[in-house]
Amino acid sequence: MELTPAPVSKLIDEFSRLPGIGPKSASRLTFYLLRRPAEQAQGLASAVTELHQKITFCSECFNITEVNPCFICRHDNRDKSVLCVVEEPLDVMAIERTHDYHGLYHVLHGVIAPIEGTGPEDLKIAELIDRVNKNDALREIIVATNPNLEGEATAMYIARQLTGHQVKVTRLARGLPVGGDLEYADEITLSRALSGRSEL
Amino acid sequence: MELTPAPVSKLIDEFSRLPGIGPKSASRLTFYLLRRPAEQAQGLASAVTELHQKITFCSECFNITEVNPCFICRHDNRDKSVLCVVEEPLDVMAIERTHDYHGLYHVLHGVIAPIEGTGPEDLKIAELIDRVNKNDALREIIVATNPNLEGEATAMYIARQLTGHQVKVTRLARGLPVGGDLEYADEITLSRALSGRSEL
Repeated sequence: MELTPAPVSKLIDEFSRLPGIGPKSASRLTFYLLRRPAEQAQGLASAVTELHQKITFCSECFNITEVNPCFICRHDNRDKSVLCVVEEPLDVMAIERTHDYHGLYHVLHGVIAPIEGTGPEDLKIAELIDRVNKNDALREIIVATNPNLEGEATAMYIARQLTGHQVKVTRLARGLPVGGDLEYADEITLSRALSGRSEL
Repeated sequence: MELTPAPVSKLIDEFSRLPGIGPKSASRLTFYLLRRPAEQAQGLASAVTELHQKITFCSECFNITEVNPCFICRHDNRDKSVLCVVEEPLDVMAIERTHDYHGLYHVLHGVIAPIEGTGPEDLKIAELIDRVNKNDALREIIVATNPNLEGEATAMYIARQLTGHQVKVTRLARGLPVGGDLEYADEITLSRALSGRSEL
């Protein structure tokens, strides 16, 4: 029964493979594109095609970039004595938006998660150690993996790999989020905020 | 500041134009595709491209199809005396899934909605009247537009256009949804269910 034409069901399938898009949303998106002018669909198609064609990873920091080395690694005004280790390219953007960090980055492309079968060898950890070894100007490594189980484990692993090196390994502060409410903070966050208290 | 490479922000923009996808989801989808093999992105891109290239509208019923006339209009075993008028191609699929309807369809491609600037002339209503005029075998037109304000108005409009024609114009039953709960039914549905009650 060819009730749904093949090109329609093919696109529904492709949309369904994306995270957070179920079969119902996928079919809604497909029929939306069908109603729109062909140019919009073509714009989406070429943007998807160009994503992998034009984006590579920076050979220094493994952030996504169009030119290698990336914008941040090439920039003269960045502080080359600090390296911020993050899980994903999106984390680089989040930190850049603060305008408070002027050092370099290192993107791990994941986190140690034995349950999902991701070990240290699947991440850019060897490349990080290599980078620390080669760069005598480095003074501090800020391990900015997420403050959850896997992120903490990965941070611990990296810190252990870097013992013996002449660099300070630091971690982002854990505490109450700004604008948050003490009353609704979970115990672990609150106890971290207490132990990390600073003088006024 | 070229923090987000252009191909990445271009795809985020294109995803954001789709209904139900905000900037955050769009960026999540884009970075997901970036992490996946290029083949998956290519599959999505070509499915989007082929959608408009391969899909046309049936010249009889205006449903989407790869071949014209469509599968349903071509089929010998369909009852050519009944025509079911629906808003969208998705509605055809919904009714076909019941396996209880064996007549033909007519897809309006929308509904009369003056606020959005959609008048009868933007829909396939003239084509419907034309089809009724040309086809003497037609006995019944089931107007299956959605049971909401615009759907009811469109149904009324179509019924008025067909007065004087030798066809019965019917509407789908309104009442309690199967599996629903009387306690939680809204008043209009309940009053429709009461007035449409049938003998056991």
